[in-house]
Amino acid sequence: MKPLMLITNDDGVAAKGLKELREVAREFGDVVVMAPESNASGQSHSLTTTRPLRVHEVRKEEGLEVYSCDGTPVDCVKLAVEYFCPRRPNLVLSGINHGSNSSINVLYSGTMAAAIEATTLDISAIGFSLLNHNPEADFSAGLPYVRHIIGYALEHGLPTDVALNVNIPRLEAKDIKGLRICHEAKAQWLESFEKRVDPRGIPYWWLTGKFVCDTPEEGSDEWALANGYVSVVPIHPDLTRHQVIDCLKPMTSESL
Amino acid sequence: MKPLMLITNDDGVAAKGLKELREVAREFGDVVVMAPESNASGQSHSLTTTRPLRVHEVRKEEGLEVYSCDGTPVDCVKLAVEYFCPRRPNLVLSGINHGSNSSINVLYSGTMAAAIEATTLDISAIGFSLLNHNPEADFSAGLPYVRHIIGYALEHGLPTDVALNVNIPRLEAKDIKGLRICHEAKAQWLESFEKRVDPRGIPYWWLTGKFVCDTPEEGSDEWALANGYVSVVPIHPDLTRHQVIDCLKPMTSESL
Repeated sequence: MKPLMLITNDDGVAAKGLKELREVAREFGDVVVMAPESNASGQSHSLTTTRPLRVHEVRKEEGLEVYSCDGTPVDCVKLAVEYFCPRRPNLVLSGINHGSNSSINVLYSGTMAAAIEATTLDISAIGFSLLNHNPEADFSAGLPYVRHIIGYALEHGLPTDVALNVNIPRLEAKDIKGLRICHEAKAQWLESFEKRVDPRGIPYWWLTGKFVCDTPEEGSDEWALANGYVSVVPIHPDLTRHQVIDCLKPMTSESL
Repeated sequence: MKPLMLITNDDGVAAKGLKELREVAREFGDVVVMAPESNASGQSHSLTTTRPLRVHEVRKEEGLEVYSCDGTPVDCVKLAVEYFCPRRPNLVLSGINHGSNSSINVLYSGTMAAAIEATTLDISAIGFSLLNHNPEADFSAGLPYVRHIIGYALEHGLPTDVALNVNIPRLEAKDIKGLRICHEAKAQWLESFEKRVDPRGIPYWWLTGKFVCDTPEEGSDEWALANGYVSVVPIHPDLTRHQVIDCLKPMTSESL
């Protein structure tokens, strides 16, 4: 039986990056797409709990089914795995996101939350992002790497508790030097709100902010991207900071 | 100068758990509360990017300022640290959540996302949750542990890249055996949607699901809670799965 890939994203079912990813995936097997109806960027790992979800069939042909859903990227993965995939997917793919999800951006990203959700269901997953927010971005330079990574994952398998966070630099094909396996760079978003005053004199605050990663460590995703490589960071859903468990033991108490 | 604690939650500014946490915190220093206007559960690490935020002052007295905001828990932390805290907070506290945030629930939790966001700003943080969803839940049995943990954090400090995920079992005071430092238990949410049909014959899907953690490993938070302990898991915002970086090296490519 052909491999089955479930594809989602957070830019919405009509996004160009989703279509590019879908066409590469179809070279390897059958594809089910379940993506948000409209842009769901920045929704992170949100779930829809206070209303039910609706689904629309967008397209159905040999080897490809496309659905849209009025939920979040994580809702899309859960719902598609349970109700819309004809069999258990071999891989969940998310993206290609219009814009970076490197470093700590993975925390805010709906694209990467969808991939992480798959790992909680014991399905391997890969999230792809291009460092270009333009809705008409040109994805062509990165597609050979997308193809290489999907092919590798299907042939060799990935650990089921791991999702790959793949970021593609905004470069021409000839300037991309290759692909590197990395860790997340430490970075921050600073100066995060702009205060304004409305016509009635009442203040409001717009989220803005500056991504700061001054000297990215060699081996980190920001270093790889700054040096012309596609970055691949293996991430997992367990946030435990194991190294400090012992340091905190003095906090342990008996009954208070 | 007295310690300053910033408090938020995801159940909303009027939640009982928030008031309980605020009163314990006030024993240690000054408190600024910035919490969502209404329930923001399950919003995870969402940000509000497509509209500006509004803030209302709820209460202001010596040592206590309370604000509500129409954003997410993560918005509340970012905005309060930048605009509403009179000085940099020594600690960000989140909760007390009405309901568990143990194990993988930390991924979906707005309460814990607020705590994690603080660590990206280099501020130590603690999220508290009681295993009881009831809006009128009785928090009293857990309060001595909340007090113990805040006191410990202020006296000894916590690593700034670490948030503590504290879960309190639903037990009477005499039955809580103490506090344990743990790692996240591996668990899953299964059977996650219920399909229904509306009066016009069109299907819709309600999120439901069953939390499954069959035999929690000793040392995990689920084990601690099942055995009558308050669980404390140190978590951090870097999701890198360092152990598999080397295994993935064969995927590395030069220019394709």
